[in-house]
Amino acid sequence: MSILEKIQSSNDVKKLSGAELEPLCAEIRAYLVETVSKTGGHLASNLGTVELTVALHRVYDSAKDRIVFDVGHQSYTHKILTGRREELKTIRQYGGLSGFPKPYEAPDDAFIAGHASNSVSVALGMAHARSFNGENYDVCAIIGDGAMTGGMSFEGLSNAAQSGEGFVVILNDNNMSIAENVGGAAKMLQSMRIKPGYISFKRRYRELLRNAPGLYAFNHRIKEWFKAHLLPSNTFSEMGFTYLGPVNGHDVHALESVLRWARDLHEPVLVHVLTKKGKGCSYAEQNPERYHGVGPFDPVTGAMKEEGESFASHFGAALCRYAAADEKIAAITAAMGIGTGLESFASQYPDRYFDVGIAEEHATAMAAGLAKQGVLSVFAVYSSFLQRGYDMLIHDVSLQQLHAIFAVDRAGLVGRDGETHHGVFDVSYLSSVPGMTIYCPASFAELDSMLGMALYSCEGPVAIRYPRGGEGQYRLCLNEPEALLQEGSDVTIVSYGVMINEALKAAENLANQGVSAEIIKLGRIKPNGFELVSRSVKKTGRLIVCEDVCAFGSVGSSILASLAGKNGAFRSCLLNLGDGIVTHGSVDELRALCGIDARAIAQQALRLIGKEEHEEDTSGSTGI
Amino acid sequence: MSILEKIQSSNDVKKLSGAELEPLCAEIRAYLVETVSKTGGHLASNLGTVELTVALHRVYDSAKDRIVFDVGHQSYTHKILTGRREELKTIRQYGGLSGFPKPYEAPDDAFIAGHASNSVSVALGMAHARSFNGENYDVCAIIGDGAMTGGMSFEGLSNAAQSGEGFVVILNDNNMSIAENVGGAAKMLQSMRIKPGYISFKRRYRELLRNAPGLYAFNHRIKEWFKAHLLPSNTFSEMGFTYLGPVNGHDVHALESVLRWARDLHEPVLVHVLTKKGKGCSYAEQNPERYHGVGPFDPVTGAMKEEGESFASHFGAALCRYAAADEKIAAITAAMGIGTGLESFASQYPDRYFDVGIAEEHATAMAAGLAKQGVLSVFAVYSSFLQRGYDMLIHDVSLQQLHAIFAVDRAGLVGRDGETHHGVFDVSYLSSVPGMTIYCPASFAELDSMLGMALYSCEGPVAIRYPRGGEGQYRLCLNEPEALLQEGSDVTIVSYGVMINEALKAAENLANQGVSAEIIKLGRIKPNGFELVSRSVKKTGRLIVCEDVCAFGSVGSSILASLAGKNGAFRSCLLNLGDGIVTHGSVDELRALCGIDARAIAQQALRLIGKEEHEEDTSGSTGI
Repeated sequence: MSILEKIQSSNDVKKLSGAELEPLCAEIRAYLVETVSKTGGHLASNLGTVELTVALHRVYDSAKDRIVFDVGHQSYTHKILTGRREELKTIRQYGGLSGFPKPYEAPDDAFIAGHASNSVSVALGMAHARSFNGENYDVCAIIGDGAMTGGMSFEGLSNAAQSGEGFVVILNDNNMSIAENVGGAAKMLQSMRIKPGYISFKRRYRELLRNAPGLYAFNHRIKEWFKAHLLPSNTFSEMGFTYLGPVNGHDVHALESVLRWARDLHEPVLVHVLTKKGKGCSYAEQNPERYHGVGPFDPVTGAMKEEGESFASHFGAALCRYAAADEKIAAITAAMGIGTGLESFASQYPDRYFDVGIAEEHATAMAAGLAKQGVLSVFAVYSSFLQRGYDMLIHDVSLQQLHAIFAVDRAGLVGRDGETHHGVFDVSYLSSVPGMTIYCPASFAELDSMLGMALYSCEGPVAIRYPRGGEGQYRLCLNEPEALLQEGSDVTIVSYGVMINEALKAAENLANQGVSAEIIKLGRIKPNGFELVSRSVKKTGRLIVCEDVCAFGSVGSSILASLAGKNGAFRSCLLNLGDGIVTHGSVDELRALCGIDARAIAQQALRLIGKEEHEEDTSGSTGI
Repeated sequence: MSILEKIQSSNDVKKLSGAELEPLCAEIRAYLVETVSKTGGHLASNLGTVELTVALHRVYDSAKDRIVFDVGHQSYTHKILTGRREELKTIRQYGGLSGFPKPYEAPDDAFIAGHASNSVSVALGMAHARSFNGENYDVCAIIGDGAMTGGMSFEGLSNAAQSGEGFVVILNDNNMSIAENVGGAAKMLQSMRIKPGYISFKRRYRELLRNAPGLYAFNHRIKEWFKAHLLPSNTFSEMGFTYLGPVNGHDVHALESVLRWARDLHEPVLVHVLTKKGKGCSYAEQNPERYHGVGPFDPVTGAMKEEGESFASHFGAALCRYAAADEKIAAITAAMGIGTGLESFASQYPDRYFDVGIAEEHATAMAAGLAKQGVLSVFAVYSSFLQRGYDMLIHDVSLQQLHAIFAVDRAGLVGRDGETHHGVFDVSYLSSVPGMTIYCPASFAELDSMLGMALYSCEGPVAIRYPRGGEGQYRLCLNEPEALLQEGSDVTIVSYGVMINEALKAAENLANQGVSAEIIKLGRIKPNGFELVSRSVKKTGRLIVCEDVCAFGSVGSSILASLAGKNGAFRSCLLNLGDGIVTHGSVDELRALCGIDARAIAQQALRLIGKEEHEEDTSGSTGI
């Protein structure tokens, strides 16, 4: 029986002898590589935090104490150690484990994670709640150096440092978050070193006080003096944190000691841990970016299947072409240069490429500053991360109607990353931004062409939203706000983006059953007067709008509002994602689950045609 | 002729002799007090930055160089010095000067301002644009210590420090932003002091290099060594800024010198300026918070009219009552304790009151952490500032359906602060948050009662949105999602919040003209099935929905979508704020301007009744 097989919970980790810890870490690493090579998932970050996670479970009781992961893709070892070892084989699959912490999955997952830089804020809230309720548990946040570039972490640290709450922030510093770290925050971290006397002083000081508690007030000043002279002066300590570190993040014994000390200080403590992404796996160590998020690969050689063409890669190539002809084009990314397809742009046009770190607020406002002074700036960003820039889209970009372009990648369902990563709110929040134009290419050719329109045929802010992955059967390039793809007489089916493929498939099925569907593809969802849709619905008397976004603010709801009172009676069905909370799985599985695939469209069309009562029918999915 | 009367532009400031500067500052102060005492506006912050602004105009040419104000309520002196002295008497009035920088007002206003912490990002974008376009102008950002607590400023600083752009950040440190400064960031600032040798070294170093440019590479290392030994080590310098300061912010000559040096360094420089809010005006110096934003007052004594009761003050009192009975209630504010009516709560329940500084992202996530551990947290925040927390509302609060309460103050038109401060997007962005319940009290009594419902009768996230200022004629307490206020047969008028007063007034006017209006008030706009509205429209055949929010995502559009295809033909008119960009003025003036007041409602009702063509008619305002 391996050591790992003995571990069913956090408590089992505590029962191990010190000598068993290193072999345990080795077993975990082997299991991570073996499993992730089959399922795909996050590899390098998990390999880098094996010892840290084992040490966390030696010191904390994850069922009771609150361990708050930042981003959370580094939580695989935590899942393995808390009763989910076997289930790890199902990770990121529909019905299987999530690739991120999920409280619904286990009480050991203290909080949801997925978007960067929130952990300190959340953990501080939990520490306050503990004081508030007079409860007794420990709280810690684990945050990477990449997430530290997000301003929200600074807000949390600034507030936490002065809170007086006993609470530990573990800075997992691998000097490279998703892409290589950038900016002053990274430089600042490099300059930090601890003077080793403090921890042992602190231990002895506590022992002394335990025997003479009355001395506290007097001793407090001595403590402050020692702190000032033994601890390094850095941003964290200036803020009010007790800074401990840096600690070798692959020495499980050192980690256990320092975490125990940090926990027992009962004050705001920052533990600076140095780790290596991909640790213990040669190919991942050598190329941690490539092995950050992976599909299945060969566990021995690390060989991966070539990735197919994607909207992201086509966007990057198209932007390079436009930039070659126009020196006014600049590209911005928030630590997602590879994910958004900007690698070539970065190497071809380094002076026009700005990777600002995980800082979507800053990126959006900087794009506005560039636009104000006449630069054609394109901020390439994942849909769900641009939620961070919502205020700046309105305040900095839109109020002055600046011509800045937002390449909104990973729009719609993203699949295996699940709830936190689906780009299903953008149609709603982007539409509320004054004067925003929104293009929705359905093919690579349309992406290319619409990017050109965004650059040269629009005023004010423009968004182009496109999905993760590649195009479907639809390969045409139709740029009109509304395009009639197929004439029909029984039902009008409206869609946009790659979802148009589901509509076309549904129409085929319906044709086989003698039903004639009219298909309208929207190329630009805002502004759009929906005249073609209106005429079509007058003809067919039936409308289905199908899209992979949340119901509120959906294009379907806009169409219904624009037809209200105008078209007389008609039957309608909006197929969308309801409130927008959708689990993980393949995109096809999720479309089927949510009732927005070809099968669901055809079914609803038949229902609208079969049942002729004079009333709206939206069952099978949600309305507004 | 006074010195001030000679100043028509930035250039005139440069022509003054050194001896004229202090008298000029005194004249500006007197003019500020005289003018603002009549118009109301921002006083203390403008009095604190007179010398700084004069020095800025000695060093920069605001028509060409880009002076980016953060928040921007400290820009009055800037307006006075750039040809708008007389117009200052119209400040914040409809058709008059804006209380914030506005590029449409003068080319000297480089960028819009209103929301905190964006200036560094914007200025960096402008500096990049300059390099990009090979242009020749200087860029600086002026940011207060309060705005420095916003994470976005950290993102901007972190990125700017490493940019290599010649560009100056002026930290206006008055050790008290709107409320007293909080958190580790403030503590950090207190520890900073410059070693005076650097500036003169730098000047000599530049002169040396001018004569021997080939030495640069070698000398660069010398420079770095000098920098390390002459400059204080602090967060800004660790990030990569050249830190200069602190400088006495009321010594106009010292300021001019240091700004000139900073500008000519042509690298990222941070100038730390110490100012006193309210400087030179005894009552404002003594109570800068009270004289931050004011109505008209006595210029000699500072005496102000007692403020009437407001939704904010009623919210604060109601929350205190609930908190007296329930120890699980906590309140959070983002530096707006007074504005949101939490003063009493803060003094009665200091352990349950969290002022996190200007940090809405952190506040929202911390509320989620508190809620996850069983605390009833209420985050009181202005509608337009909660835009900053949009991602956290979705990611941290909603995905786990945590029961956190958002008291959304300044919802709808706020009046004199204008574009940047109107709370006109919240109905749209809050409605897109999964599972969000949204209450809209129309009276103080409803606010009290709905707060109770939010605390104890709801699950998941809850928002209560209420306006700036007080209640109108409507004083009832009707809590239903839909309430029939008045039966009628000719037209259905729907509204919510204090806008219901306009609907009631319109109905009165209409009654005088023989038109019978049915009035429905919405108490909860989400969730809401609009059954009563639907029945009413079936009866009247005509619908007007009147609200002071942007068109997209408005309740009117939701109602139309829910009636579409269901109610047969009816005529409708949505009265709202269109794209949501609305200038400054009194709320009554703005309602009239936007066509959402009683007069406009009555007019539209008559039009719907008079013109019987079978088509929708939305003229007079905007649709979706």
